[in-house]
Amino acid sequence: MIIRPAQPLDHTAIWQLLEPMLREGETYALDRDLSREAALAYWTGADKLTFVAESDGAIVGTYFLRANQAGGGSHVANCGYLTEPQARSKGVARAMCLHSMEQAHRRGFRAMQFNLVIATNEAAVRLWNSLGFETVGCLPGAFLHPRLGYVDALVMYRSLGPA
Amino acid sequence: MIIRPAQPLDHTAIWQLLEPMLREGETYALDRDLSREAALAYWTGADKLTFVAESDGAIVGTYFLRANQAGGGSHVANCGYLTEPQARSKGVARAMCLHSMEQAHRRGFRAMQFNLVIATNEAAVRLWNSLGFETVGCLPGAFLHPRLGYVDALVMYRSLGPA
Repeated sequence: MIIRPAQPLDHTAIWQLLEPMLREGETYALDRDLSREAALAYWTGADKLTFVAESDGAIVGTYFLRANQAGGGSHVANCGYLTEPQARSKGVARAMCLHSMEQAHRRGFRAMQFNLVIATNEAAVRLWNSLGFETVGCLPGAFLHPRLGYVDALVMYRSLGPA
Repeated sequence: MIIRPAQPLDHTAIWQLLEPMLREGETYALDRDLSREAALAYWTGADKLTFVAESDGAIVGTYFLRANQAGGGSHVANCGYLTEPQARSKGVARAMCLHSMEQAHRRGFRAMQFNLVIATNEAAVRLWNSLGFETVGCLPGAFLHPRLGYVDALVMYRSLGPA
């Protein structure tokens, strides 16, 4: 598997990952009916660096990296990751997160923050924990899960030491 | 003092509040060199409801109200408040916050979240505490204060009960 910057030619593959995630609405706080155009504008926007994970010529994951805030908060990075369903539990998200931390550190970011990790998404929480992220906040009922109702969301954070 | 929706005619007064806050860079994670046009586009953007506090015909404060997230997070409101320096400690921020909670509740928001309260801004933390906000998270070193260096930022949250 290689992880490389996304190109316009990857947009079809990225949309194929984005669409089911959006329609399910269980992991990201994004409008469930976002169009292809709006979703790609979000995921690959000018405020972000977007990468894809490619395995045997197929896109099995994608992530973006951006500054979480402007001004005095611009040294903290934020990322969003998405893995092809059939490629889950195969280390794709872990590889993308490690890649993103290295990229962020190289670009001068001093920390990384996830603003809204759905607390019921135990696999994600466990993965971020194993990669050094700490739960620094809990937002009670901050996410309306389509199946579970109002669930808590976590703020997770880690500093980015030397690469 | 009355609090009312901002009109285009208020933009000059709003900018007079925004400009020193931006240039100082001590309270909001916004680019310190933001232009008037970009700052007003941010503060009064289409994703926000913007209000002004008016006293004796002068604008002494302004705030915006928006959804903090889209999709499954869109029931949580977010606000930014700004008070004219000479009007501080006179209850303007408190009045705007109470107004914003009532507006948010009326519009169906179930909670309000502040994403990045600078921990050294003790007056703000005390005020939000007194208005029922709890510190639900602490982001270590997440804000680069122009005088104090890297300081912690707080995530503050409160549910919005019946108005």
